[in-house]
Amino acid sequence: MNGAESLVRTLLASGVDTCFVNPGTSEMHFVAALDRVGGMRCVLGLFEGVVSGAADGYARVTGRPAATLFHCGPGLANALANLHNARRAQSPIVNIVGDQATHHRPLDAPLTADTEGWARPVSGFVRTAAEAARVGAEAAAAVAAARTPPGQIATLILPADTAWTEGGVVAAPVPVPPAQAADPFAIVQAASVLRRGEETLILLGGAALRAEPLALAHRISVATGAALLAPMSNARIERGQGRVPVERVFYPVDAAVKQLARFRHVILVGASEPVAFFGYPGKPGRLLAPGCTLHVLARPEQDLHGALAALADDLGAKPVAAPDPGPRPEPARGAVGPEAVAQTLAALMPEGTVIVDESISFGRGFFRGTAAAPPHEWLQIVGGAIGAGLPLATGAAVGAPGRRVIGLQADGSAMYTLQALWTQARERLDVTTILLSNRRYAILLHELANVGANPGRTALDMLDLSNPDLDWVALAGGMGVEAARAADMESLADLLAASCRRPGPFLIELAI
Amino acid sequence: MNGAESLVRTLLASGVDTCFVNPGTSEMHFVAALDRVGGMRCVLGLFEGVVSGAADGYARVTGRPAATLFHCGPGLANALANLHNARRAQSPIVNIVGDQATHHRPLDAPLTADTEGWARPVSGFVRTAAEAARVGAEAAAAVAAARTPPGQIATLILPADTAWTEGGVVAAPVPVPPAQAADPFAIVQAASVLRRGEETLILLGGAALRAEPLALAHRISVATGAALLAPMSNARIERGQGRVPVERVFYPVDAAVKQLARFRHVILVGASEPVAFFGYPGKPGRLLAPGCTLHVLARPEQDLHGALAALADDLGAKPVAAPDPGPRPEPARGAVGPEAVAQTLAALMPEGTVIVDESISFGRGFFRGTAAAPPHEWLQIVGGAIGAGLPLATGAAVGAPGRRVIGLQADGSAMYTLQALWTQARERLDVTTILLSNRRYAILLHELANVGANPGRTALDMLDLSNPDLDWVALAGGMGVEAARAADMESLADLLAASCRRPGPFLIELAI
Repeated sequence: MNGAESLVRTLLASGVDTCFVNPGTSEMHFVAALDRVGGMRCVLGLFEGVVSGAADGYARVTGRPAATLFHCGPGLANALANLHNARRAQSPIVNIVGDQATHHRPLDAPLTADTEGWARPVSGFVRTAAEAARVGAEAAAAVAAARTPPGQIATLILPADTAWTEGGVVAAPVPVPPAQAADPFAIVQAASVLRRGEETLILLGGAALRAEPLALAHRISVATGAALLAPMSNARIERGQGRVPVERVFYPVDAAVKQLARFRHVILVGASEPVAFFGYPGKPGRLLAPGCTLHVLARPEQDLHGALAALADDLGAKPVAAPDPGPRPEPARGAVGPEAVAQTLAALMPEGTVIVDESISFGRGFFRGTAAAPPHEWLQIVGGAIGAGLPLATGAAVGAPGRRVIGLQADGSAMYTLQALWTQARERLDVTTILLSNRRYAILLHELANVGANPGRTALDMLDLSNPDLDWVALAGGMGVEAARAADMESLADLLAASCRRPGPFLIELAI
Repeated sequence: MNGAESLVRTLLASGVDTCFVNPGTSEMHFVAALDRVGGMRCVLGLFEGVVSGAADGYARVTGRPAATLFHCGPGLANALANLHNARRAQSPIVNIVGDQATHHRPLDAPLTADTEGWARPVSGFVRTAAEAARVGAEAAAAVAAARTPPGQIATLILPADTAWTEGGVVAAPVPVPPAQAADPFAIVQAASVLRRGEETLILLGGAALRAEPLALAHRISVATGAALLAPMSNARIERGQGRVPVERVFYPVDAAVKQLARFRHVILVGASEPVAFFGYPGKPGRLLAPGCTLHVLARPEQDLHGALAALADDLGAKPVAAPDPGPRPEPARGAVGPEAVAQTLAALMPEGTVIVDESISFGRGFFRGTAAAPPHEWLQIVGGAIGAGLPLATGAAVGAPGRRVIGLQADGSAMYTLQALWTQARERLDVTTILLSNRRYAILLHELANVGANPGRTALDMLDLSNPDLDWVALAGGMGVEAARAADMESLADLLAASCRRPGPFLIELAI
């Protein structure tokens, strides 16, 4: 058995059975091994940013790492932006990166690059296999590193000779301890803060945004009067009818400062202190009021569910029903607008839908406007590197067969990784993309206005995606995804409903 | 004047008047400054890999650096693969990367990343501006670093506050010394090697592949019997009728070893020792015969033209006419094949054409088959990171107005950076792309066969771009580039000739 085969067998033994790939020459022995050893689902992406974003989406809906396969340093480099997003989402991913053979690397052949150097800023674990006999053990360690709570990125670099040389050894899975319980003192302290009755916010992040911990947080909120919020961007929120709704910290700095002004205490549950997405002249970076005290109930890598349960117990907080979000709305009619799109989404999304939200400026109200939808999950771009949405939707659909994925997708961001549509077509994934076509970087026009001065032609041209107009029906069709245009809410509703009734991907270009 | 304005004015004063951009929020003050200060041509790319590849193409045809504008670490990350290629091509580029404001960085907001860490492996110069008053001086230093022979990548990171704060100072250009003369002893030694009359190869790289140094090398070759070759991949070769043709080191290892077997001496002129692109089991990495002696006439950063002139003088090598490549061929007819495509190219390319060759496996014979074309330039993907072609063609067309750029483009590679087509349409660039559509990663199928064993479904699927077929006419049309399909040589010739007669971009999907 060569190193490559020991790698495939070790990954499978460690529970990694899905691999998003974009291979090159140095990975051919791994590709050949995938052929010989059954059981690994391989999903091809035509650009590495698709591959890494898909692995992120897969991890978010399954809670398990997929493997990726990249070609040398530059191949990994193309994956970095979405690995940055995945790192911020605490998604477990096992990157396999082929590289120059050990004896070939000193010759500085053209593709030679600093693969470890590029991997390090996004990875909690980076190792280069030294010999075939070690590949299995390193792979098992990489999977364990990826699964270590709250989840991280592990990058294993495989010089080609460690893959092709005989002497591979399959490694047993490395046990991963479960998330550590929160510090009992932190629970006592949080309870005492809540009993003071001062304005207190419980800020819930990561795994605290699943339905059950949210229900516990709601009990605590009802019992103590504390408010609940989530950070502005989150990997996955379970929400909809019967679940506890949670608002998020606002993106615009002034609005967020106002939103948070009244709180004297903030209790963090798997979240960190809320800060502005960017610094601006004369505006604060920290969003909490001066004098507000931060408390940590549980850190992201701890057992957030358990911590909330213990806190609810300590406070004697009784089970309470989730608030009633009101009846499910009917689809909106007439002109296209953000509230109307949210209303139609709430009306038509099937139960269990996975929403992937990269709607940027137009979609700020989508979340609030869909609270009365059936139970569903909401995935956001967490690291702020645009181009996450289409790949996330692709990977989520691979990880959640039988459920509809609906992408709420800004056009400028979609262009970064549009190749994902091809993978959706090839794998016949149940993804409906609502492509919000405003033909501009709308958020940047807003930011430019903030900078002051009347923008001139040069500046406006740099933020304008018209001239020529992007034709998303043609782009999707060119990659095998059926698509259609909607210019009013009636046609959006018709197309959305139809796409949810049939298998496979569909793209709706919505003129906004 | 704020830091951003001092940056724009310093770049202009230093001779940088073209900026390929993909901005974000942290770059808005730079964008506003570009508006206020006239004279900078800004070219928008809808993905950073387009921006960096275009800056490479621009540098190759003009010999001057363009600036780029990227958004934070992940924006730079998307540019890295083509920056890797540009580094290998020794292209001067000045990257401007916006980043978190100095006071905001410690808060670890979502987009915060290790921008310097990602920049370093591709950059000869990396600096982060510390304050507005220093931005001008750092920018002038960055331009000088980029222009330092043979050309390198300079990355200047601009925390947003250094752009928006008043107190910017325009810096005078930093003088760049011309390329240093080669060591006189190296010339004497090379002459003495050549006078021995043993089998000797002169390996010409970088600036030695322009028409005049090639003519000098040819004189030396005729006088001494030495052979001439170029490395397998080159940033720019001047060739065609009236110029000295130069063959390249072969890509397949066995063929290259055979090609180089007879040489007892190799004299390097701006080139490095030829090595295999990848290591393979049981094959050599170094391609020269054992016992072959390497000599350095001039290093890449030295004056290669001057070194060849001095060597020709020392040898008393007389001026000789360039070899006659024979008459210009007629366009090929009938079925599509590599030789036929080369013949049609030679028949129809206008004088002064810039060829951008990312044809990978199908196009290995294109170079040899176009020797009898009118004078033209040949640009290759030098660093091996695919996805260079469409952006290179885009930037070359920006840098060489009035000349036709013809891209010879493999489909798998084109998918990495297809967004470049939109920029071609917007800027009405004179680019004809011949999209070689074989719907597979053909080179990898070959490599997989080398690995042995009959590939099965899993492996083949990972190298297959059909299911669904990519429709390049639709993809180009979706980005505003007119396109048509050719299935035989007659229609390729018609479409190629027509596209060369009219301004603006055109894409020909050629079924191969």
